[in-house]
Amino acid sequence: MAVNLNIPDDNKIFPINGIEIAIGEAGVKKNNKKDLTIFKLSSGTNVAGIFTKNLFKAAPVIISEKNLANQKQIKTLIINTGNANAGTGSKGIEKAQKICTELGKQLQIDSQEILTFSTGVVMEQLPEDKIINALPRTLDGLGKYTWKDAAYSIMTTDTKPKIFSEKLDISGKEITVTGISKGAGMICPNMATMLGFIGTDVQIEQSLLNKMIKEIADFSFNRITVDGDTSTNDSFIIMCTGKSGLDIRNENDPNYKKVFELLKKASIDLAQKIVRDAEGATKFITINVEKATNSQEALKVAYSVAHSPLVKTAFYASDPNIGRILVAVGYSDVKISTNNLFIWLNDVLIVKNGEINPDYIESDGQQVLQQKEIIIRISLNQGKTNETIYTCDFSHEYVTINADYRS
Amino acid sequence: MAVNLNIPDDNKIFPINGIEIAIGEAGVKKNNKKDLTIFKLSSGTNVAGIFTKNLFKAAPVIISEKNLANQKQIKTLIINTGNANAGTGSKGIEKAQKICTELGKQLQIDSQEILTFSTGVVMEQLPEDKIINALPRTLDGLGKYTWKDAAYSIMTTDTKPKIFSEKLDISGKEITVTGISKGAGMICPNMATMLGFIGTDVQIEQSLLNKMIKEIADFSFNRITVDGDTSTNDSFIIMCTGKSGLDIRNENDPNYKKVFELLKKASIDLAQKIVRDAEGATKFITINVEKATNSQEALKVAYSVAHSPLVKTAFYASDPNIGRILVAVGYSDVKISTNNLFIWLNDVLIVKNGEINPDYIESDGQQVLQQKEIIIRISLNQGKTNETIYTCDFSHEYVTINADYRS
Repeated sequence: MAVNLNIPDDNKIFPINGIEIAIGEAGVKKNNKKDLTIFKLSSGTNVAGIFTKNLFKAAPVIISEKNLANQKQIKTLIINTGNANAGTGSKGIEKAQKICTELGKQLQIDSQEILTFSTGVVMEQLPEDKIINALPRTLDGLGKYTWKDAAYSIMTTDTKPKIFSEKLDISGKEITVTGISKGAGMICPNMATMLGFIGTDVQIEQSLLNKMIKEIADFSFNRITVDGDTSTNDSFIIMCTGKSGLDIRNENDPNYKKVFELLKKASIDLAQKIVRDAEGATKFITINVEKATNSQEALKVAYSVAHSPLVKTAFYASDPNIGRILVAVGYSDVKISTNNLFIWLNDVLIVKNGEINPDYIESDGQQVLQQKEIIIRISLNQGKTNETIYTCDFSHEYVTINADYRS
Repeated sequence: MAVNLNIPDDNKIFPINGIEIAIGEAGVKKNNKKDLTIFKLSSGTNVAGIFTKNLFKAAPVIISEKNLANQKQIKTLIINTGNANAGTGSKGIEKAQKICTELGKQLQIDSQEILTFSTGVVMEQLPEDKIINALPRTLDGLGKYTWKDAAYSIMTTDTKPKIFSEKLDISGKEITVTGISKGAGMICPNMATMLGFIGTDVQIEQSLLNKMIKEIADFSFNRITVDGDTSTNDSFIIMCTGKSGLDIRNENDPNYKKVFELLKKASIDLAQKIVRDAEGATKFITINVEKATNSQEALKVAYSVAHSPLVKTAFYASDPNIGRILVAVGYSDVKISTNNLFIWLNDVLIVKNGEINPDYIESDGQQVLQQKEIIIRISLNQGKTNETIYTCDFSHEYVTINADYRS
């Protein structure tokens, strides 16, 4: 029941020159589904990543952060589904390391040149042998698979694959950005994790790329929420092969902005697709908080509204129960002078100077809530900072899915 | 479907000497239900109150806070259901004031000697004339009604009345504490509000009472949550008539502790009953966070777990999906050294030193989750502070009720 989640046509999903993909069946996921994905990167590829802020980082996150930090070149990524290897302690780290070591041997690279990712059940030990046994036959397929195959093989509770792909001409060079994501948002730590992988044939200088990925995440993967449950495995990676010949060395490069905007567009699209596929979602909700004193203040208000089960259930019911939005702003723990508050549903002004807009007609609010894409616009009128986050409504289906037994 | 919510037998619900109760039908609530409650207090009654922290305080809250602050004696309380008079701006305040003025005239007291409370739909103007018209016939019934009648007449979405009553012998004097509460927690701002009213025939010196009510609320009404939605109207009031002849003037009074403990017991009982009656609740969950550095830290962890829809749906499903608890602790934004974390479900140790307890058997967790009363015990092992909060699970019923149209 994903909300307006489009899958590009196969001929619109472009490979990235310099990235080879392999898909396998390790048997970690039940009834031999594809559960193993490998990205092999050509030499000279720059890689940056950001990871979950959850204190209980999963074992693969701990290893990947370490390997990214040690400045070696990253040459391969390996992703398994079916088990998140989280809450598994030192044993879990050994298992994840063992997989990197084995994969390194077979590709004749240092295990520290590998990033590893896991998504699936939390707090169950990873059957690493199944993965290791599957490596040879999986690697035989290197280069025979597409980004679409990868989008499918990293799915857990996702109902649809999440893919972005676009080409752009920049000063005579054709560049490509293709990416995939998975996760029903942060809403499912027992089938954990939001993952995002973006590849491009542009080259971006490493320290610049490290800075860009943080900025881009704050427009995209750090701006989505379903129920505020931040998984132990969340990871977002950008890989730059440079094969297009376009090389961005600093922010003054005349092409920097174009590349930044395309990567940002890709990230927002892939992040939004996670919300569009959120379990039980029937509506896609954008929350704009405007004229806040600072970003933290704007986000506090936005998340307070986005996490209110009362707001979410009212949207599910298409009931313009606008009082619930006002109430959620009121307990967001942000100092605002209530008289300055304005709230719109799309273009319908519902709250004016902190109280119900005297000209508001319920049928107008009703009409907005019938739609599948809704914008809640909240103006605090006390500063210059705006923030945008994306969320969804709260349905019976959500409870059903999350109340289900894991088996 | 309230969880173990007991209603005392009529002969166990004791009146409070010095408090007269009147109940009426103003027609604010549909199909002439009782929707008006008046407490008339004998002269010399000390009253203390605490109110919602929501920025958008309802009009009656603004007036009651003002009247309590101006040190006059409080002689009467009036409560209406059906409309919360919240988000209604200056007009709403005028309407609430008008009710106090009219009631004052008829009782020949100053309108500033009245506290007023409203609960019901948010952001709709209060039909104050209906209430004013109902005053004379309602006041005719003064003294003819019981605390049980009052418990019923303040109900909105509550499925059961919430009543506590106990007598105690203190140095030869029989004292009585009787109280009522309403609300399906903070979960329903469109039928808003948590209200608690406790009466006793003990006399407690005003400044001491002001201090006591804050301390008591932090064991009770400030320690319950269903979905974190703090209403605009929450109010908790203690009324001390002194008619028992027992008079507590300071904390050194040998009887202070006994009185404090009984009022605390009453408040915890009335607060828990709100959670037991929370919409859709099928389980009553106590969360103990132990050995935290300070209270704020303990509460952050506790509420992070209590507000996780994933934890709540897992409990609804009786699925010991223990990873979800660990994850919620991990994103609670509290600095803890993960290795020190221990988590128990009742007496079953599920997390040991920050990872799954190797000796944990799922059937043990299963057995705990079959029960209707569950204790999640979380030890951070980094300090000396403990906190306890009360919450419930998250069911289909919750979505159904809150997705319902208001009509």
